[in-house]
Amino acid sequence: MHPFTHRRRDSISALGEEKLLAAIRRWLGAASPRAPFGIGDDCAVVPATRSPQLLTVDPVIYGEHFDDRVAPRAAGEKLFKRNLSDIAAMGGRPRAAVVALALDGGVKLAWLEQFYRGLAAVSRRYRVPIVGGDLARHRGGIVATLTLVGEAAADRIVTRSGARRGDWIYVTGALGNSLGSGHHWRFTPRLAEGAWLARRREVRAMMDVSDGLAKDLRALTPRGATPALDATALPRRTGATVAAALGDGEDYELVFALAARADRRRFAAAWRRKFPRTPLSCLGRFVDRGALPATALNLDDFRGYEHLR
Amino acid sequence: MHPFTHRRRDSISALGEEKLLAAIRRWLGAASPRAPFGIGDDCAVVPATRSPQLLTVDPVIYGEHFDDRVAPRAAGEKLFKRNLSDIAAMGGRPRAAVVALALDGGVKLAWLEQFYRGLAAVSRRYRVPIVGGDLARHRGGIVATLTLVGEAAADRIVTRSGARRGDWIYVTGALGNSLGSGHHWRFTPRLAEGAWLARRREVRAMMDVSDGLAKDLRALTPRGATPALDATALPRRTGATVAAALGDGEDYELVFALAARADRRRFAAAWRRKFPRTPLSCLGRFVDRGALPATALNLDDFRGYEHLR
Repeated sequence: MHPFTHRRRDSISALGEEKLLAAIRRWLGAASPRAPFGIGDDCAVVPATRSPQLLTVDPVIYGEHFDDRVAPRAAGEKLFKRNLSDIAAMGGRPRAAVVALALDGGVKLAWLEQFYRGLAAVSRRYRVPIVGGDLARHRGGIVATLTLVGEAAADRIVTRSGARRGDWIYVTGALGNSLGSGHHWRFTPRLAEGAWLARRREVRAMMDVSDGLAKDLRALTPRGATPALDATALPRRTGATVAAALGDGEDYELVFALAARADRRRFAAAWRRKFPRTPLSCLGRFVDRGALPATALNLDDFRGYEHLR
Repeated sequence: MHPFTHRRRDSISALGEEKLLAAIRRWLGAASPRAPFGIGDDCAVVPATRSPQLLTVDPVIYGEHFDDRVAPRAAGEKLFKRNLSDIAAMGGRPRAAVVALALDGGVKLAWLEQFYRGLAAVSRRYRVPIVGGDLARHRGGIVATLTLVGEAAADRIVTRSGARRGDWIYVTGALGNSLGSGHHWRFTPRLAEGAWLARRREVRAMMDVSDGLAKDLRALTPRGATPALDATALPRRTGATVAAALGDGEDYELVFALAARADRRRFAAAWRRKFPRTPLSCLGRFVDRGALPATALNLDDFRGYEHLR
């Protein structure tokens, strides 16, 4: 759906702020608790917990992360799920979300309703209330920004650092062609998988793949090492070449390092029992820089998604 | 400063993402701790606390909240301070911020540097680290969204509800002409005042004035009551008419209800001792709807700032 209309009576500005806010509450329904634990005060109140909090923020922008081919409901879902993927990548559990919308007064009311209904659907599915937000005018554009608060799901969080030379490199799901296949809005954030992985000590470092594996893996690679990946082991999405699997963005899969000494067979068996429907692939391992086998992929040949190009 | 340039070599896109992120870290300096307690992982980690958390989000948008007349450093400061004002309004203490920037590749590097230096200055001044963020391309615009996490500064938070008929209405500072006077970016968020007020039980409800007092006061007004304000008691900013003091937006002052039975003289004296430089005005009180004195302002005659008009 094209988000904008020239017919004033179909636009959000025709409704006026007060009625619009009432409509948004209606669309969110049970996804948004009452103030002060939800929308309607200067801040939202989120109950205290004993564990460290996780904090992440990601937007969806019209013309960048979605366009007229993506249903508004799917755009709303994507906004929420992108952030859930970041919580998953630390082995976290999401707790509460706030949403800031910057949008033109000429946005269709019907578009905005479906967008919020998408947010509400994800909120209910993962039991993460939308506790606050902001609505501001932005001539000619739509920028929706969601901030997610979470906490550790296990007794630790898993960061990007901690991998060592010799560790094995694993990735969930399949990679590449996310835009062409619609995966970029259809994906399922790997929350359950991330929480399970955080409970396994042999998982040393983890992140989500969002800018393409070749680029993202750099952040996971220990100093003095390089990833030696086997091209045939790359789980490619339908329509994805090896270059696409390594360079496309928006995979929203988890990549992690498994300790060199781990029992990989037992690990893989435990994974299959727990997540029979989520593929898991061992792509290779971190080797000494300069000791890259001739058969391994040279990741320098592949570029990931470059923001702000 | 106009934020955009046609000379590619002066733009952020010329630098490329990796170098730009390195530059941002440099500009933020000590304002941004290292991952996982700061920028550089999928989420930021914020240490646990025992008290409930506060969560608020507000943007600044080019063409709406700032323009070429506002220095980029001031725009960055404004973004941070608007959110601090929301924490102040609940009697909270700010703890950590994340910043999401959606911006055109043609934004001047010099503009972005000053914007981040403004964020860093406020971060240092109030000791609130910037722990994470996101940078995304947005053709033709700048939308910067800051989310702030806080906690109660006292043993309670103060919400918008709780005022009763007969309660007195107070406001800090002065109102109106915020845009004309530059107050909209020069203001000081009332954090110390908000925290102090939260410790006084006689303060029953509080909020910040951001859309004009006439509009905002509705949220504070108890059911069946109406605010009876004395026009002569309105603290007006230089150049502000009564209509401006009631209807202009972006005051970033605190308005609160003081219990009818409170010792107002003692309260005002304690305030002056604690905040000799912050004016405090008693504007009137909440009276029965229908019992509005003829001398009181009729707030229905004044409109506040209407978003999305």
